[in-house]
Amino acid sequence: QIDSARLWGSIHETAQFGATAKGGVRRLTLSNEDKQVRDWFRRACEDAGLEVHTDALGSQFGLRKGRDMSKPPVGIGSHLDTQPTGGKYDGILGTLGALEVIRTLNDAGIETEAPICVVNWTNEEGSRFAPAMMASAAYVGDFTTDDILSRKDAEGTTVGQALDSIGYRGDKPVGFQKLGCFVELHIEQGPILEAEGKTIGVVDSGQGVLWYDGKISGFESHAGSTPMPLRRDALATLSEIVLAMESIAKKHGPNAVGTIGEAVIANPSRNVIPGEIAFTMDCRSADGAIMDALDRDLRAAIAEIAARRRVEVKIDLVWRKPPTHFDPKLISAVENAAKTLGYSSRRITSGAGHDACNLNTIMPAAMVFVPCKDGISHNELEDATQPDCTAGTNVLMHTVLAIAGV
Amino acid sequence: QIDSARLWGSIHETAQFGATAKGGVRRLTLSNEDKQVRDWFRRACEDAGLEVHTDALGSQFGLRKGRDMSKPPVGIGSHLDTQPTGGKYDGILGTLGALEVIRTLNDAGIETEAPICVVNWTNEEGSRFAPAMMASAAYVGDFTTDDILSRKDAEGTTVGQALDSIGYRGDKPVGFQKLGCFVELHIEQGPILEAEGKTIGVVDSGQGVLWYDGKISGFESHAGSTPMPLRRDALATLSEIVLAMESIAKKHGPNAVGTIGEAVIANPSRNVIPGEIAFTMDCRSADGAIMDALDRDLRAAIAEIAARRRVEVKIDLVWRKPPTHFDPKLISAVENAAKTLGYSSRRITSGAGHDACNLNTIMPAAMVFVPCKDGISHNELEDATQPDCTAGTNVLMHTVLAIAGV
Ligand SMILES: NC(=O)NCCC(=O)O
Ligand SMILES: NC(=O)NCCC(=O)O
Repeated sequence: QIDSARLWGSIHETAQFGATAKGGVRRLTLSNEDKQVRDWFRRACEDAGLEVHTDALGSQFGLRKGRDMSKPPVGIGSHLDTQPTGGKYDGILGTLGALEVIRTLNDAGIETEAPICVVNWTNEEGSRFAPAMMASAAYVGDFTTDDILSRKDAEGTTVGQALDSIGYRGDKPVGFQKLGCFVELHIEQGPILEAEGKTIGVVDSGQGVLWYDGKISGFESHAGSTPMPLRRDALATLSEIVLAMESIAKKHGPNAVGTIGEAVIANPSRNVIPGEIAFTMDCRSADGAIMDALDRDLRAAIAEIAARRRVEVKIDLVWRKPPTHFDPKLISAVENAAKTLGYSSRRITSGAGHDACNLNTIMPAAMVFVPCKDGISHNELEDATQPDCTAGTNVLMHTVLAIAGV
Repeated sequence: QIDSARLWGSIHETAQFGATAKGGVRRLTLSNEDKQVRDWFRRACEDAGLEVHTDALGSQFGLRKGRDMSKPPVGIGSHLDTQPTGGKYDGILGTLGALEVIRTLNDAGIETEAPICVVNWTNEEGSRFAPAMMASAAYVGDFTTDDILSRKDAEGTTVGQALDSIGYRGDKPVGFQKLGCFVELHIEQGPILEAEGKTIGVVDSGQGVLWYDGKISGFESHAGSTPMPLRRDALATLSEIVLAMESIAKKHGPNAVGTIGEAVIANPSRNVIPGEIAFTMDCRSADGAIMDALDRDLRAAIAEIAARRRVEVKIDLVWRKPPTHFDPKLISAVENAAKTLGYSSRRITSGAGHDACNLNTIMPAAMVFVPCKDGISHNELEDATQPDCTAGTNVLMHTVLAIAGV
């Protein structure tokens, strides 16, 4: 059994780095707050006897030796960055839970056969730089390191510049730390476990993701003197796209979602019809065929709206992550650990993307979910209970012990 | 006849203050560019022999003596501020046209019976500070000077601070310069004169304006893991409001328009359902009963949308300007001047608001319109021809001569 109070203490101690007035955390990747939590994490890993290295994209790896160092390490961890208005648990539970597993094994004097590696992946959230889960995507070879280093945030700062500015461009090449498998603990970020009164979600799959950048070019014109029929209003165009996205997602059933999270009017003024809007779109499904249908329906709807409104709409698919099917053996290991520990559980699909989904493309991976209050995440009000977080961390530890061997 | 080349020269000389790459002007009220054009204008007025004063809200008044100084001056002018992406003519033609009238009278050695006063009104555009036509509204007593001085821009800077920062908080109280009447020359900002091949618009009325500040409070949530039916999406709510506004304006016929020009998502992120949006609304009609109906219909639609989407929407009416009916005698004076000079003309309603609409509430006022290319305004591509601008300035001069007396 892990030390529940110590786990809870480290979650709340690190929540000071970027704490918001509403009880959440604002810790965008590679920001100054992210540097603070990284420094804390490195020290804590070193204090726990781990050998810590940072790779060229800033991901932190803390290695605990195993009896048989020829075996590839069991990877555990998640991320410490947050949304602009994020919570205290998303990613953080999985990273500090992994640290707690190490501390517990140390206290109990348990040596494992295979080594264990704790990881804090850079930019899981994808708010400041696209795509999300950027560093683990480079780790598995979906993108080159140079490509990722050149990605820009809204201010034009590159990942490389941001890494340098906080001193976290590590000296190890991406992929230097081989892993044999990866297990990630996370809050569910959805309402199912809580609604069904289950403590552990045994994650067997994850939704695929489509991310688009969009740009609408209408025509700026005077709000008072331009008759309604003559307008080429970029905001009215966006509005139709938002509602089309909503109804297309609904049409494809419970297994699809679609969101427009960002939309910025260029040079806005009360008495000017908006002429240009930049926006993003996020579509997901756990079913690859539905993802294709979402893409097709969305493009058709946008083409129709743009033509009817005599407005240009450009859509650029910037990221496509196929649905994830986690490793059956690891799924069973998580399920058995929950059973052994006496926690109620159910199989579940992840609505969110996770670093484990990327790792699963080149190694066995799995995830452990715990409930979060009202399914709320990506919100400062995100909440989870200490018993649930403790349970999830116990399941993580017992899964690791089963895989690594004692 | 005015000096067409000199008028054209001063329009293009001052267009350097805030010139944009696309050939427009970005000269927000009380900005540094606005200071530059104000300095230029003051010097030009002084060189033309005018006595120049600035009032407590920064409006500039240049007085040309008349034979009978007991008569109140005939006011002419407009504004030199622009939209964020504005053109070279909106307001500028009317102000520099007024200056050109003075220069022409000087050259011809013409003395008028009543004095003439050239005015550059502060913040006509209303982009940086609300309401539009702020200084002329205070002049006619719609707002107190202190109220206007305390209005804030998006950065929280007050009108008072902005005036001080460019040194244009004048020493004269608002209203110090009495005027007997006011005549404003302006580009039409709509497509009618050009479409009908008319040179002069004799403006007999102006649309009323409703300006609202709105705020939508939904709930931020994860774009991937929040099922569609559980969402309280602020952007989807805004989208319905935009389309409702559009169809309500259309329903009330050609004599109504409605626009949402500003909408800002708080803490936007690609994978977060927007939780909070601040936006503005602009509704207009030349018919007071239609304005009331627009307000009623809009509030009802918003209430229905908000309730259905379980989202809070707050609407604040920040400005209500009733429709304008200009002075019949001055309208005739403009019409006669056009006829005498041999220009084709027609009566017309102003779609945009103007300082003359404010002045008309306490003194006789009228306006002269000239065509602008494709009716485009509040756009960097705004354009007007030298012959049309010259014709409008000639009509302005002959109207002034008829009123002031030679
Ligand atoms: N877990 C999580 O919130 N990931 C962020 C990436 C995404 O799914 O949008
Ligand atoms: N003439 C003009 O564009 N005025 C700006 C104020 C408004 O009508 O919105």
